[in-house]
Amino acid sequence: MQLTRKYRFCASHRLHSSQLSDEENREVYGKCNNPYGHGHDYVLEVSVSGPVDGATGRVVDLAALDDLVQERILKDLDHRFLNVEVPEFASLSPTTENLSLVVERRLEEAWPQAFPTGPGLARIRIQETKRNTIEVRAS
Amino acid sequence: MQLTRKYRFCASHRLHSSQLSDEENREVYGKCNNPYGHGHDYVLEVSVSGPVDGATGRVVDLAALDDLVQERILKDLDHRFLNVEVPEFASLSPTTENLSLVVERRLEEAWPQAFPTGPGLARIRIQETKRNTIEVRAS
Amino acid sequence: MQLTRKYRFCASHRLHSSQLSDEENREVYGKCNNPYGHGHDYVLEVSVSGPVDGATGRVVDLAALDDLVQERILKDLDHRFLNVEVPEFASLSPTTENLSLVVERRLEEAWPQAFPTGPGLARIRIQETKRNTIEVRAS
Amino acid sequence: MQLTRKYRFCASHRLHSSQLSDEENREVYGKCNNPYGHGHDYVLEVSVSGPVDGATGRVVDLAALDDLVQERILKDLDHRFLNVEVPEFASLSPTTENLSLVVERRLEEAWPQAFPTGPGLARIRIQETKRNTIEVRAS
Amino acid sequence: MQLTRKYRFCASHRLHSSQLSDEENREVYGKCNNPYGHGHDYVLEVSVSGPVDGATGRVVDLAALDDLVQERILKDLDHRFLNVEVPEFASLSPTTENLSLVVERRLEEAWPQAFPTGPGLARIRIQETKRNTIEVRAS
Amino acid sequence: MQLTRKYRFCASHRLHSSQLSDEENREVYGKCNNPYGHGHDYVLEVSVSGPVDGATGRVVDLAALDDLVQERILKDLDHRFLNVEVPEFASLSPTTENLSLVVERRLEEAWPQAFPTGPGLARIRIQETKRNTIEVRAS
Repeated sequence: MQLTRKYRFCASHRLHSSQLSDEENREVYGKCNNPYGHGHDYVLEVSVSGPVDGATGRVVDLAALDDLVQERILKDLDHRFLNVEVPEFASLSPTTENLSLVVERRLEEAWPQAFPTGPGLARIRIQETKRNTIEVRAS
Repeated sequence: MQLTRKYRFCASHRLHSSQLSDEENREVYGKCNNPYGHGHDYVLEVSVSGPVDGATGRVVDLAALDDLVQERILKDLDHRFLNVEVPEFASLSPTTENLSLVVERRLEEAWPQAFPTGPGLARIRIQETKRNTIEVRAS
Repeated sequence: MQLTRKYRFCASHRLHSSQLSDEENREVYGKCNNPYGHGHDYVLEVSVSGPVDGATGRVVDLAALDDLVQERILKDLDHRFLNVEVPEFASLSPTTENLSLVVERRLEEAWPQAFPTGPGLARIRIQETKRNTIEVRAS
Repeated sequence: MQLTRKYRFCASHRLHSSQLSDEENREVYGKCNNPYGHGHDYVLEVSVSGPVDGATGRVVDLAALDDLVQERILKDLDHRFLNVEVPEFASLSPTTENLSLVVERRLEEAWPQAFPTGPGLARIRIQETKRNTIEVRAS
Repeated sequence: MQLTRKYRFCASHRLHSSQLSDEENREVYGKCNNPYGHGHDYVLEVSVSGPVDGATGRVVDLAALDDLVQERILKDLDHRFLNVEVPEFASLSPTTENLSLVVERRLEEAWPQAFPTGPGLARIRIQETKRNTIEVRAS
Repeated sequence: MQLTRKYRFCASHRLHSSQLSDEENREVYGKCNNPYGHGHDYVLEVSVSGPVDGATGRVVDLAALDDLVQERILKDLDHRFLNVEVPEFASLSPTTENLSLVVERRLEEAWPQAFPTGPGLARIRIQETKRNTIEVRAS
């Protein structure tokens, strides 16, 4: 059984790779390479999987999940300029692909302490705009 | 190939576990433990999988699927107070997790007679609110 | 200029009018007359109108609006069985029409103290299900 | 890692199988067998999977994906009467199931030339109406 | 007080005006002038306004409204090729503007008999696609 | 008759008023005062009103409307940091209220030349997030 819970955060970013020349950056990222950045309302879905607890009828303690996502993800990403304010993007282009990897890694790291007896982290999904969604299955 | 069809029903419930004390119930379920209950507009997705029929170009007879869901699920759950009117929840807390298991079990039981030659029941999903969705893969 | 802000609450209700016989109630309300009640995820939209404040660039102090709606509406309606737990519905059928009038009246009453210098309450809308929405213009 | 990108197209179709009698067609397809056809706003989701490119932070070149979908799918299907204007449906009933197979096959055929070094085509999904969605995993 | 109820129908159409030359038609309507037609999933919103009935707590008898819309609108428009199967469009281009006028006129005509004592028809809205919506206030 | 057309743009902004002290800014705008800015996916709805053209069946030439919105609004606002890249916000806090006034004024200015014989600009709406929408009626 899998439970998916949805969170929202808004942030700004500039797509720019330190491994590409300025001209290559403009070509690869187009308007998204605008030096002043632009923003999105991201939708984050966190999916957990495990058995249903016989006493509570729940797969996961939602309050604990909310706390974890608040503490490890939203506090640092919501209302932020990702390139400048989130350390992982100091030299990493904040594409939704990389953003998803960063979110997944942060959750993986904190998971064992937050949920020592389960459930497991199954998958995260980030919707950047109505058109694009990235999905990462937890390792 | 997989087809997913969406149904809606509204119902009320009270989250309360007979295996927990009153105080534990209030702590685990918060406002959802309100003795008078509260309600939701549930969205149920039923996914079936199988090959495409060469003559009809269809994976499943949609009318037969609608009949089955109407008869086994909607007739008993729509516009009901789950705790009182649905026998499975007489002593089971009607969390969306347990609701999903009940729906899945009811469909599994009736499936062989409704679709003796296929397709198979692949998965059910219940969205409780815009934030929470439960998914159960059929066994 | 008009600002509309969206709130959500879930509640259960039973449509039943004390001015109708039991048979008339069943005929008028159908499944919604089920004595045990059923529920919905209501969406409430509150619209205010007024000029933009030159210093803040805002039509309304959103925190003050949220406080008012929380205190006067959500605290009493969210996760409640409207017929039993909300005094206005002791002898009034909790249709979305009547619910809208109750919500509008509660906001009107508290408005002058909450927003003595403006903006005005312009309109409330309640969406019961995806199909039905009620709109009341403030008097 | 999987990226899903959404496209829209509107088209008309008539569900009619050359392998069924007129009466069987009316029985199987109901209103959808109407000889003059009717239409839908289809939503197509194309999912690709592969590793994130270290330099660009991208799973796929979105412009190349858009070009491929435009050239192979939208140009031929958008604003068309599928039965008459799309060769695959000359003798195939344009159910969403068959439409999904046609779209998947067209993308599979063009994929190696468009993306010789990856990513792979993972899945396509077509939503016919709010109620029905078909999903085909790429072979 | 105003109640808005939502209906859906799917239909196909070809935008073509008998008052324009073939070249002008292609220029004005673009892809929508495709002779074989194309289709949409239309969303129709019907708004009625009036006082709340003291006994039922309702602005309108929803069953009567559904019957009227079914009989006068959906029966004739749903799953139809508008240009060929709906008489009003024999020589009128079935743009969403004209479609809205036709729907409004049909409802206006049948309204007095269906609702002799109220409520009034206030407005209709038709959403053609996610991007375009037409609104007509009842006269 | 009124037609509403939807556009989308993403941008970043920082809520900060030059008429308030730093402390007042933090108090009034909270997280939105973050000096590095943050972003949103804005939805802009432009409503025009007028009679239906007898020949084309249209209220407005959609291509002309799209050109106007592209040229006067999207080109300057999409993928931009509003505070720095849009002149009107050099000393004006880019709240959605002020953003709506700026968009409305730009459209009003260009309207007579773009649509000398009608239709009129009726209203603009900007949805900042799923919760907040601003509406300005054209003067």
